[in-house]
Amino acid sequence: MAVPSRAGARPRLDLLFLQRFLQIQKVLFPSWSSQNVLMFLTLLCVALLEQLVVYQVGLIPSQYYGVLGSKDLAGFKSLTLLAVTLIVLNSMLKSFDQFTCNLLYVSWRKDLTEHLHRLYFRGRVYYTLNVLRDDIDNPDQRISQDVERFCRQLSSMASKLLISPFTLLYYTYQCFQSTGWFGPVSIFGYFILGTIVNRMLMGPIVAKLVQQEKLEGDFRFKHMQIRVNAEPAAFYRAGHVEHMRTDRRLQMLLQTQRQLMAKELWLYIGINTFDYLGSILSYVVIAIPIFSGIYGDLSPTELSTLVSKNAFVCIYLISCFTGLIDLSTTLSDVAGYTHRIGELQETLLAMAQKSQGEEIPDKSKWDFDLVPGEPATEPADTAFLLDRVCVSAPSAEQPFIRDLSLKICEGQNLLITGNTGTGKTSLLRVLGGLWASSRGSVQMLTDFGPRGVMFLPQKPFFTDGTLREQVIYPLKEIYPDSGSVDDERIMRFLELAGLSSLVARTEGLDQPVDWNWYDVLSPGEMQRLSFARLFYLQPKYAVLDEATSALTEEAEGELYRLGQQLGMTFVSVGHRRSLEKFHSLLLKLYGEGRWELSRIKVE
Amino acid sequence: MAVPSRAGARPRLDLLFLQRFLQIQKVLFPSWSSQNVLMFLTLLCVALLEQLVVYQVGLIPSQYYGVLGSKDLAGFKSLTLLAVTLIVLNSMLKSFDQFTCNLLYVSWRKDLTEHLHRLYFRGRVYYTLNVLRDDIDNPDQRISQDVERFCRQLSSMASKLLISPFTLLYYTYQCFQSTGWFGPVSIFGYFILGTIVNRMLMGPIVAKLVQQEKLEGDFRFKHMQIRVNAEPAAFYRAGHVEHMRTDRRLQMLLQTQRQLMAKELWLYIGINTFDYLGSILSYVVIAIPIFSGIYGDLSPTELSTLVSKNAFVCIYLISCFTGLIDLSTTLSDVAGYTHRIGELQETLLAMAQKSQGEEIPDKSKWDFDLVPGEPATEPADTAFLLDRVCVSAPSAEQPFIRDLSLKICEGQNLLITGNTGTGKTSLLRVLGGLWASSRGSVQMLTDFGPRGVMFLPQKPFFTDGTLREQVIYPLKEIYPDSGSVDDERIMRFLELAGLSSLVARTEGLDQPVDWNWYDVLSPGEMQRLSFARLFYLQPKYAVLDEATSALTEEAEGELYRLGQQLGMTFVSVGHRRSLEKFHSLLLKLYGEGRWELSRIKVE
Repeated sequence: MAVPSRAGARPRLDLLFLQRFLQIQKVLFPSWSSQNVLMFLTLLCVALLEQLVVYQVGLIPSQYYGVLGSKDLAGFKSLTLLAVTLIVLNSMLKSFDQFTCNLLYVSWRKDLTEHLHRLYFRGRVYYTLNVLRDDIDNPDQRISQDVERFCRQLSSMASKLLISPFTLLYYTYQCFQSTGWFGPVSIFGYFILGTIVNRMLMGPIVAKLVQQEKLEGDFRFKHMQIRVNAEPAAFYRAGHVEHMRTDRRLQMLLQTQRQLMAKELWLYIGINTFDYLGSILSYVVIAIPIFSGIYGDLSPTELSTLVSKNAFVCIYLISCFTGLIDLSTTLSDVAGYTHRIGELQETLLAMAQKSQGEEIPDKSKWDFDLVPGEPATEPADTAFLLDRVCVSAPSAEQPFIRDLSLKICEGQNLLITGNTGTGKTSLLRVLGGLWASSRGSVQMLTDFGPRGVMFLPQKPFFTDGTLREQVIYPLKEIYPDSGSVDDERIMRFLELAGLSSLVARTEGLDQPVDWNWYDVLSPGEMQRLSFARLFYLQPKYAVLDEATSALTEEAEGELYRLGQQLGMTFVSVGHRRSLEKFHSLLLKLYGEGRWELSRIKVE
Repeated sequence: MAVPSRAGARPRLDLLFLQRFLQIQKVLFPSWSSQNVLMFLTLLCVALLEQLVVYQVGLIPSQYYGVLGSKDLAGFKSLTLLAVTLIVLNSMLKSFDQFTCNLLYVSWRKDLTEHLHRLYFRGRVYYTLNVLRDDIDNPDQRISQDVERFCRQLSSMASKLLISPFTLLYYTYQCFQSTGWFGPVSIFGYFILGTIVNRMLMGPIVAKLVQQEKLEGDFRFKHMQIRVNAEPAAFYRAGHVEHMRTDRRLQMLLQTQRQLMAKELWLYIGINTFDYLGSILSYVVIAIPIFSGIYGDLSPTELSTLVSKNAFVCIYLISCFTGLIDLSTTLSDVAGYTHRIGELQETLLAMAQKSQGEEIPDKSKWDFDLVPGEPATEPADTAFLLDRVCVSAPSAEQPFIRDLSLKICEGQNLLITGNTGTGKTSLLRVLGGLWASSRGSVQMLTDFGPRGVMFLPQKPFFTDGTLREQVIYPLKEIYPDSGSVDDERIMRFLELAGLSSLVARTEGLDQPVDWNWYDVLSPGEMQRLSFARLFYLQPKYAVLDEATSALTEEAEGELYRLGQQLGMTFVSVGHRRSLEKFHSLLLKLYGEGRWELSRIKVE
């Protein structure tokens, strides 16, 4: 829910850009014989062919001056026939150019996104990147949006950029042919002058533009916040205050917009004058040789043809330059995306390499594709073995917990309590392998998964998909319909978790739902659904992080009793005293490293 | 956090559109002498003037054919001088046109947004609209984004639309002058044919385009969801599953994009051919009178001038038509926004009228501007009086609670418990006046605010701004620095709520912070901050909805004891048994209308 803010800094076109760009090119063009290379070469050929035809089409008006000036009806007819043929050919080539560009964009996007997905989802990279590191902002946006824009911009500009030297040279030559040195040089000078003036006028605008975008984002975010928090705001009777605050943000935004517009006025004048003067320039350029008598032997009709042809060449040359300016903007965008994607890729690769060594022993263990009915590897009777473990936040100095030694065995239900910020959830993160302990050794002696250890995180997690997919999660990415046996189990556990009404709402297990599970379930229902999942997966050890905080003590008791009947050993984090009766050991955390382990007396 | 989905339905240009459009115009142009009317008239004048100059500028190339064809150096010089003057004048007019458009956009946006704000924030309309009604989707986006786009589109198209009949008529006349009936009629026919072909080619694309946008939104949403839920996903070891699911969404998206591109190829060919053929059409149109001998007495140079002038007129006429097509797209957008904004406005007006009758008695009571140190109106010793009240969800048949009679007096602390979905929070909503009771009478006998009743909603609410603004919320929209006395009070209550560390993090009460409070505070800290607010405001009655669920029982006890020392009477909703010792009455809700009120024995 962060406010999108475009970084104010200009992306640099430096050596780092080149390295990152080449790194990405390796993904886009894996080998010389790959499909992408073929498509790119096709695109280049089509674009070159197109330039040839465009030149012919551009000369048609000047030929019309010839045939109309000399009233040559036969010539007019054949010229029109030629014109129509050329135009149809030209538009087909142009369309095919766009089409190839688009295909190339899709193909590039596919390769680049899949490449990043592979790195992102390997091991627990997505967790480390999103939660533990803050040097890479918004990795999700980089993968979904920046890649999209990068491929789109690159595919649209690649062929233009490669062809523009040829067209520039060719039209400069043509211009030189009809006007001598004066034409190309003056167009060149005009273009440079225009660019300088444009830059000068743009300077003060860029900063204001960034500020305006930020304020616009703030204003929208304020409205979104009010919408999401409408109920608490209404409880506080905050309508008047929020009205004033929202209006204030609007005024700041509009104020900035007005300032921006006043500055833009000069830019508009500059751009408009530049554009129109360019079209006149071509006549001035051809006037010099005409008045200096070089074309003294031409008839007026021939002169008109010459003027028209020259106008086309000059205007096209100017448009080549203008196209180059536009490309420089695109290039600057591409550079920005290159840096963002390159940064992400480098970080992902570095993390993948670092974790490769650590994660290999785990890998074989996460065998999720076994049917839960069949036994996996024989579970050990000890789940975790902690030896003088220190737990601290990744960036913090002071540990939450110091020198904790603990053995979690079958049947030994452990309750972890402690004040806010004493490291309860952090201890679970260390148990789950999400964080490394800063000292000591943590051993997980049982497999992760059904028949092994399962975690219910503090924040319930639901994926997209049907009710069945929520319950069996994360067993299979796409679950095959396994018939009535499994259905019965799922239904029974949903019922035991007190969710019969939910089945009615979803109209069955496999009904595709279009909703977001977080929106339709109450906090209590989310926790019940998490328990249904736990019952279905039937792990030997269940690690629960405040998994019943939104339920009554009665409901909590029922769910715990059921879990114990299914043979689960619990490691629970919770505040309530009522939890004690389901546990035999109590770990109290006091913060600043202190802790106390005691046996719970049966009342 | 909903996926933005552009409605697939085409906005209709019907009578309802006209009504809504006129309704919005009343806001944009409140009177004939308003600033907006003046600006709009200026815009019209500038745009008309611009057309006159554009025509002169457009004739310049044809005049160049004249002076170059006859090698008239003096004419060439004066023509170039004239051209430069006209071009500068033209670009200044054009820039001023854009500038006025922009100013008009800001002014319209200001008026329309402020108008909607007034309606939206009146009473508790924002709550009712966002939470209780689902006929108006995304009101926040309508106010912040749709209004913005509406004003931008309208300001850019208004002058063009009003002027286009004049330019169309004028250029049709000019075209008629040089080519007779043949010219305008063939351009007309060409334009109609082009539109029909364009529509036919567009048809199958629109649906695919909508589908592609939806899939793109789904893909981004999936990535966003993984980012937000990275920790629970890592606890579930869900990397592999989520990789498969995300890839599947990507494939579906790319598949649709490829299909779209194959269809777009034909559209491209159509559009490109149409564009280029148009430029040739002008020569064909002028060829007819030339070959039929009408201009038999013209010299070749004069003929070239005529051809060039005619080319300009024809091309401009075609571009007028093309402009009209573009305007029709803009108009269709404007119609869409008109419907969305109009719908919102109608609903807001209807709600404002309905609530006007109900809310007048309340209004004088919300006197928030009194300093909390001074006594407001004398508080009564009874806060709420409920007589045979039924509580049910706004759209539900079955009430949660039936025939509840209850009196909440000073010193009588009430604890409300019950299972998930038995209506605990709904009862508070009825107490807070957010919902109406479906039967019976609810009386709030004490003022809302400091010295009266305050609610702490289940979901803590923080506004944007400094730490001071969080604590004193919702007392003042912009708080005047009130010196050390108030500072001491605030600091003391923050300390008592256990938030000394937070003050260190924010570096003082008034340090502007750029963060989102929801991101930087843990659930426990949020609840502590809500309590600090409660202590500062010192109401006589505090209604707490699971306000300590993220805290330990010790912390909970401290906060309750402190509140009681400050003389507060509590109405609490909570699950924990440990809460009972701070309350003397227990209201148990069983759902389906049943409830039980009992006295809590002091242990």
